[in-house]
Amino acid sequence: MGREHVLDKSKIHHKWDNSLTPAIEIDPGDIVHCETDEVTSGQVTPGCSADIFNNLNFDLLYPLAGPIYVKGAAPGDSLEVEILRMQTLDWGWTGLIPGLGLLADDFPKPYIRHFDLSNGLTTALRDDIHIPIQPFCGTMGVTIDEAGQHAVLPPTKGGGNIDTRHLNVGAKLYLPVYVPGAMFSAGDCHAAQGDGEVCVTGIECPMQFSLRFNLHKGRSLRPWSYQFVTPPGPLQPKYDEQGYFATSALGPDLMENAKNAIRDMIGWLVAEKGLSREDAYVLCSLAVDLKISQIVDAPNWGVSAYLALSVFRS
Amino acid sequence: MGREHVLDKSKIHHKWDNSLTPAIEIDPGDIVHCETDEVTSGQVTPGCSADIFNNLNFDLLYPLAGPIYVKGAAPGDSLEVEILRMQTLDWGWTGLIPGLGLLADDFPKPYIRHFDLSNGLTTALRDDIHIPIQPFCGTMGVTIDEAGQHAVLPPTKGGGNIDTRHLNVGAKLYLPVYVPGAMFSAGDCHAAQGDGEVCVTGIECPMQFSLRFNLHKGRSLRPWSYQFVTPPGPLQPKYDEQGYFATSALGPDLMENAKNAIRDMIGWLVAEKGLSREDAYVLCSLAVDLKISQIVDAPNWGVSAYLALSVFRS
Repeated sequence: MGREHVLDKSKIHHKWDNSLTPAIEIDPGDIVHCETDEVTSGQVTPGCSADIFNNLNFDLLYPLAGPIYVKGAAPGDSLEVEILRMQTLDWGWTGLIPGLGLLADDFPKPYIRHFDLSNGLTTALRDDIHIPIQPFCGTMGVTIDEAGQHAVLPPTKGGGNIDTRHLNVGAKLYLPVYVPGAMFSAGDCHAAQGDGEVCVTGIECPMQFSLRFNLHKGRSLRPWSYQFVTPPGPLQPKYDEQGYFATSALGPDLMENAKNAIRDMIGWLVAEKGLSREDAYVLCSLAVDLKISQIVDAPNWGVSAYLALSVFRS
Repeated sequence: MGREHVLDKSKIHHKWDNSLTPAIEIDPGDIVHCETDEVTSGQVTPGCSADIFNNLNFDLLYPLAGPIYVKGAAPGDSLEVEILRMQTLDWGWTGLIPGLGLLADDFPKPYIRHFDLSNGLTTALRDDIHIPIQPFCGTMGVTIDEAGQHAVLPPTKGGGNIDTRHLNVGAKLYLPVYVPGAMFSAGDCHAAQGDGEVCVTGIECPMQFSLRFNLHKGRSLRPWSYQFVTPPGPLQPKYDEQGYFATSALGPDLMENAKNAIRDMIGWLVAEKGLSREDAYVLCSLAVDLKISQIVDAPNWGVSAYLALSVFRS
């Protein structure tokens, strides 16, 4: 059995940089207990107004726990990260940040919603709209072999801000290794997010999480790729009960189709459920999944946005 | 209660064409029992070799049941199509057709697999690989208000070849209406297909299916869009038991990411499961789902290919 380590909450960094000193050195098989603040490092606070998004210090975004040096890891290996525990605290937020998001042009103004996560199971967007809590780290990645500081928002060839909603407890993530020790970091935790993360934020929240690391020597992965395995059972069991409503868009550009499918879903949520356009967009980011229905019926591909109808209940 | 009609298997057409005479006229609320041949109209036969794909008569593709004229339907309405029954017969096939499919350049040669669908629940790609049967019509659409003959392979602004795997029994599909009577047709049935249909074919098969039609007067849908509701419960219950293995690709182009994620999945299936490259591609088309994991972390979006691990069993 591996040893267990606690990575102090102060051991964070905000950029990928292969000149950083490791925050901790561990052996393969070891577990690291981490804790990170939400993605703005405390600039967004419980109950604050959306004005914060007009004055964000972008240099403070993405407080990541790490880098974690895994002894023996070398370029050409892959690093296995097993997600053992994801513990939300009592608060999170979702925001529309001007200039970012799939529909940035449609939503130029800042907007914020705060969420009570204290029951640990669901959180309410409205009295009759409940979003299951299914937490994960939005950012998990390794340091790349390119000198200098690299922003965390764009994913890198080492993963990073991959925002993949099914990397929940029980999943194992595989990442390519580029530098000795892999120099893994994680953070940017989300209490909930749909496939796509369309408004650019999930439910951003402080989190305590525990990860176990293993190495696969010589099992190289293609740069710009990652792989994962989910635990037995449905991908999103709390969502399945009532089926799904979906909006689909056809056309020659997958990106435009995704935008149109989300626009149609927002239109439906406004017309049928009485949500404001902003809250509809927020709900799409938190509970709508973008799927590529078909990518072969040239020249008109289809992208579908699926909303779990179980979110609607009194 | 509506009346029930049988649409004779001979009442088919191969092109969208708003000058066609309706095969049948029905009232809203009525049910139509249909039967169609597989997508090549019998050019592909049980046990035939892949040579057929070098000599396909494309004019005979897509034998669609219809057009069905729904009385009262007018431009600006939406047509509801409830899927009541989908009955596979005992055989289906999946093929690699030169020039078509997501990885057409990687797979230039024709290839075919035949499937025994007689048990109605699963079908075997190999003794230890079993694909759940979850049937649907690959093509469901309405006639558009543009004169002439329009091929069925590309979806139109009236839907058509939408290849959306979750339009199974119990789902309701909504389509925009462009011409009086809507002039709906369906066919191109699949016994199984993953989100993406990456090799360009699902398990193509003859099918008996029953649909109920309703109108939503004045509820217009955006052209090039469709919507649907799935029944209560998981989207793909037969797939969930063992969790999923996923390959993900990052980069600035969703199409390239989809290709790379599927290439990585094929690589994994060949290396870890001993499949031929062709069978791996076939399995991706039948049981792998393409999801857009994130579409906001500019400039590197993420597309993931999910394979249900439940397909592997002795």
